[in-house]
Amino acid sequence: MTRATADETPATAPRARRGPYRRLPVEQRREQLIAVALELFSRHAPEEVSLDEVAAAAGASRPLVYRYFPGGKQQLYEAALRTAASELTRRFVEPSEGTPTERLAHALDRYLSFVREHAAGYGALLRGGSAVETQRTTAMVDEVRRAAFTNIVEHLGVEDPGPRLGLLIRSWVAVVEATALTWLDEGDVGSVESLRDWLVDEFVAMFAVTALHDAQSARVLRRLLTHYDGAGPGAKLIEGLGGLLLPEE
Amino acid sequence: MTRATADETPATAPRARRGPYRRLPVEQRREQLIAVALELFSRHAPEEVSLDEVAAAAGASRPLVYRYFPGGKQQLYEAALRTAASELTRRFVEPSEGTPTERLAHALDRYLSFVREHAAGYGALLRGGSAVETQRTTAMVDEVRRAAFTNIVEHLGVEDPGPRLGLLIRSWVAVVEATALTWLDEGDVGSVESLRDWLVDEFVAMFAVTALHDAQSARVLRRLLTHYDGAGPGAKLIEGLGGLLLPEE
Repeated sequence: MTRATADETPATAPRARRGPYRRLPVEQRREQLIAVALELFSRHAPEEVSLDEVAAAAGASRPLVYRYFPGGKQQLYEAALRTAASELTRRFVEPSEGTPTERLAHALDRYLSFVREHAAGYGALLRGGSAVETQRTTAMVDEVRRAAFTNIVEHLGVEDPGPRLGLLIRSWVAVVEATALTWLDEGDVGSVESLRDWLVDEFVAMFAVTALHDAQSARVLRRLLTHYDGAGPGAKLIEGLGGLLLPEE
Repeated sequence: MTRATADETPATAPRARRGPYRRLPVEQRREQLIAVALELFSRHAPEEVSLDEVAAAAGASRPLVYRYFPGGKQQLYEAALRTAASELTRRFVEPSEGTPTERLAHALDRYLSFVREHAAGYGALLRGGSAVETQRTTAMVDEVRRAAFTNIVEHLGVEDPGPRLGLLIRSWVAVVEATALTWLDEGDVGSVESLRDWLVDEFVAMFAVTALHDAQSARVLRRLLTHYDGAGPGAKLIEGLGGLLLPEE
């Protein structure tokens, strides 16, 4: 990448015609262009990335990029987004080992490092209002949300989540996104580990409150607690809250 | 409105030129066009509303609409959105009377009826990806979120919310939006009252969990509890959670 860009620094028209660019097999070139675009779109808002920059960073010419992506920057953005969405979706997959809160913590660790790796682009995408945003791009974001939803449902061991359990999961996914955005915007909300632990605790608390309002959620919660030896996160939560909320004797 | 539309049904060019439209003073006409647009944009996704429909529903001609809104549908959409945003922001204002959870419940009642009144448009706006969405429209949505944030901070009696307290409030606002969207999408999540009560309980629980992680939040929470005679929502929460989460003796 750096080498090719250096080659082109004193680029002149004749030189370009002679073809200073590295030749790559079709599929490999396509993947390389997407990888380069993803890297640029991760570090900058979509408005700040030009097709020329992608071409330069890939050691390719502008016409070559158009040959692979006739729709130009928009098509390249969507291809990069699709790759990122697949990658993020893969990170949600967690084996059914350990306690449910341990599994949630592992998936959150992987999610938060994804957010860090794709900071500017992920922030711009979630905030919306960008010119590259279309019904296709929001559909991809929704797909990722649905993948998160489906994974959580699976780990809860639920066949058919009712409306309240569904609402809880969607709401907590929204909390995770709001946390990611706050972290990107303000930076000083704490370490990744402390954010992860807070998010896990919030999940337990939000779930427990939902269980007070909904019979299915209560059944699922009770079954989940059998994964823990002794106290479990619910009892720990109550102990903590008791010290905080109950009047001192 | 209906009358004017009926007048235009057999509209012919000469008739239009003679001016079958009701004449209104400038400011009043502008407000009427915005009100009509807001009504249409509330009941339909922005893609489904045309400038001609707005004109017809307002009993006005297409050129007249353009005279007031040279930017056409986009400008009209943004004006309608600005009106809706001001209206929603007004609904957040709640006197400092009653307990904090009562105040939150009142504001939520008003928010949820706003969501119901503007169902299709509000859903499309929050979901994003619409062609009328720009940095200006997302800025307006953010303004509303900030207004919600500021109101909550005021009722908490906090001068300068630290990062964790800020994160909690942003997260809960995200929960409220996710709840509104789920309600609009699926319809069967329960009555407005039960959603409101669930959201209030979630606020208490999320706040309490944050207080376990953050000293400022703990101080603010303890002060809020002095608004309650006797038990308060924290104690009720612990009682409920205890029955649910603690092993039976």
